[in-house]
Amino acid sequence: MSAAAARNSTYIALTGGVGGAKLALGLTHALAPGQLTVAVNTGDDFDHLGLHISPDIDTLLYTLAGLANAELGWGLAGETWHFMAAIGRLGGPTWFRLGDADLATHVERTRRLAAGETLSQVTHHLAHRLGVRPHVVPMCDQPVRTVVETRAHGTLAFQEYFVGHKCEPAVRAIRFDGADRATPAPALIAALTNPALAGIIICPSNPWLSIEPLLAVPGMREALRASGAPIVAVTPIIGGKAIKGPTAKIMGELGLELSALTVAAHYRGLIDGFVLDRADEALAGRVEMPAEVTSTLMLSLDDRIRLAESVIGFCDRLGRQHRKEKAA
Amino acid sequence: MSAAAARNSTYIALTGGVGGAKLALGLTHALAPGQLTVAVNTGDDFDHLGLHISPDIDTLLYTLAGLANAELGWGLAGETWHFMAAIGRLGGPTWFRLGDADLATHVERTRRLAAGETLSQVTHHLAHRLGVRPHVVPMCDQPVRTVVETRAHGTLAFQEYFVGHKCEPAVRAIRFDGADRATPAPALIAALTNPALAGIIICPSNPWLSIEPLLAVPGMREALRASGAPIVAVTPIIGGKAIKGPTAKIMGELGLELSALTVAAHYRGLIDGFVLDRADEALAGRVEMPAEVTSTLMLSLDDRIRLAESVIGFCDRLGRQHRKEKAA
Repeated sequence: MSAAAARNSTYIALTGGVGGAKLALGLTHALAPGQLTVAVNTGDDFDHLGLHISPDIDTLLYTLAGLANAELGWGLAGETWHFMAAIGRLGGPTWFRLGDADLATHVERTRRLAAGETLSQVTHHLAHRLGVRPHVVPMCDQPVRTVVETRAHGTLAFQEYFVGHKCEPAVRAIRFDGADRATPAPALIAALTNPALAGIIICPSNPWLSIEPLLAVPGMREALRASGAPIVAVTPIIGGKAIKGPTAKIMGELGLELSALTVAAHYRGLIDGFVLDRADEALAGRVEMPAEVTSTLMLSLDDRIRLAESVIGFCDRLGRQHRKEKAA
Repeated sequence: MSAAAARNSTYIALTGGVGGAKLALGLTHALAPGQLTVAVNTGDDFDHLGLHISPDIDTLLYTLAGLANAELGWGLAGETWHFMAAIGRLGGPTWFRLGDADLATHVERTRRLAAGETLSQVTHHLAHRLGVRPHVVPMCDQPVRTVVETRAHGTLAFQEYFVGHKCEPAVRAIRFDGADRATPAPALIAALTNPALAGIIICPSNPWLSIEPLLAVPGMREALRASGAPIVAVTPIIGGKAIKGPTAKIMGELGLELSALTVAAHYRGLIDGFVLDRADEALAGRVEMPAEVTSTLMLSLDDRIRLAESVIGFCDRLGRQHRKEKAA
């Protein structure tokens, strides 16, 4: 446990799904439960079969509960597929696969939302029932929907693009429908105004697809900056390659150079420090802000914890430096 | 196959769930698919977990498809319960058990209803996908909800009474909310006005809980009589005992004598003939209408088919007699 944990400082992680969840899991090991708030992208949420599905929230909950399906990279461990087979027999849509146990999460979420609970309240309940102790909060309680404008297939809802088309269509632009009517979730605002807040960590999720929806919520950037806490981002690019998913492909399609520097530049003006992988140590002098160089590849649980501790230490150093500058 | 089948006469069965489905299965073996329309009680339908559940329609579909769970007496054979376990883990309601594959029926039905299909259209689709060839139609497309007024627990929705309270509260009265705004399903009206219609069979379902909702649909009794086809009812009471379910208990609570004669009297004015079990042969002279005495206990598939053939033969005899009287 880092020195930070001993001080009861608090931290906020901003994250999308799988990649970000790895670091969030590391943070839960490096911090006490009350020290961590995880704010999750809900731009990937969608309605399917009459159910409200929140893929990134579920990935976070399942990962932090130790229930994630490591083989699939999504869903629950030990999942069964009897529902899916039966839906297929009935001629229903099968392009988005829902396991029998996973389905209960969507049904219970939908039921509670229909009964008038907010997405924050439902997420809090699900986390509690699954034994997840850090605060997991959606970025907002209003519907925001990531929409991908493609060259060959026109405008696609995120899951149509991501699952239905397997990220194959070339991306022209990404927008976040409904973001203009959203506000940051109350628990996230509470965490941002907590005097004990010592750092905000942008997880190594896809900056354009998974983090940008969070930042598109009106007032979010301002609230992040107004917290006064150091904001650091962890690169999802190592040695000019994306660790997973369509990040590299999309960067190419958007005409961006496939480099950790591009990500640092993307977040410039928002963040106070950038975490680079050792493979990109040579770039440290070119990020134009304080840089932390460490091993960012998270293959094992130990990797996740070590990276979490590095990032927490980086936040703490930036915080001390900031206080020193203020005092001077 | 009876002589009726050879003539391409058509028949309509009115039915609730399990008991009625046994005779309906017998009828599907005794008749060609195009000869049979099964009109099903939907008073037991309810919304649960955001899903539209039609217990009697599903029992009919699963039974006629050869997929019914014989051990449970409801649901699908070979069912699994991973969804239910997961809902329990999340603190959701578990009093109404939904199997993983059965759940697909409710999700697909709900999805199609939300997309604007009628319950008749959805039922037709599900039947087709499950390989059920006779026409299975809901009694109506509008919501009708059976409500049970009890002595100790006040007013209960049907499934609260039937599953939640296991039929334990004493029944004072039964009503059918919404029935005043319902009309018989279009396919049922079509079957009733088919010139080839040779008989209407009221299956041995609970007359007060399962058949009465059908008869409570405005215009239903008139349409049944106007068809001109003989209407016969099969007793659910054998030797002063109900074959299954809460029929006997409810009859007692409603102050009714537990006898096949009570059922015959209940249907008097609507039906042209009554089918008694051999155990009640002595009552045949007291039903005050033509009576058929046969074995009505359906333990095996053969029992179901034999009873179906008896009932079809009874309809045909009543029809011939009716035509003779008309000609005279």
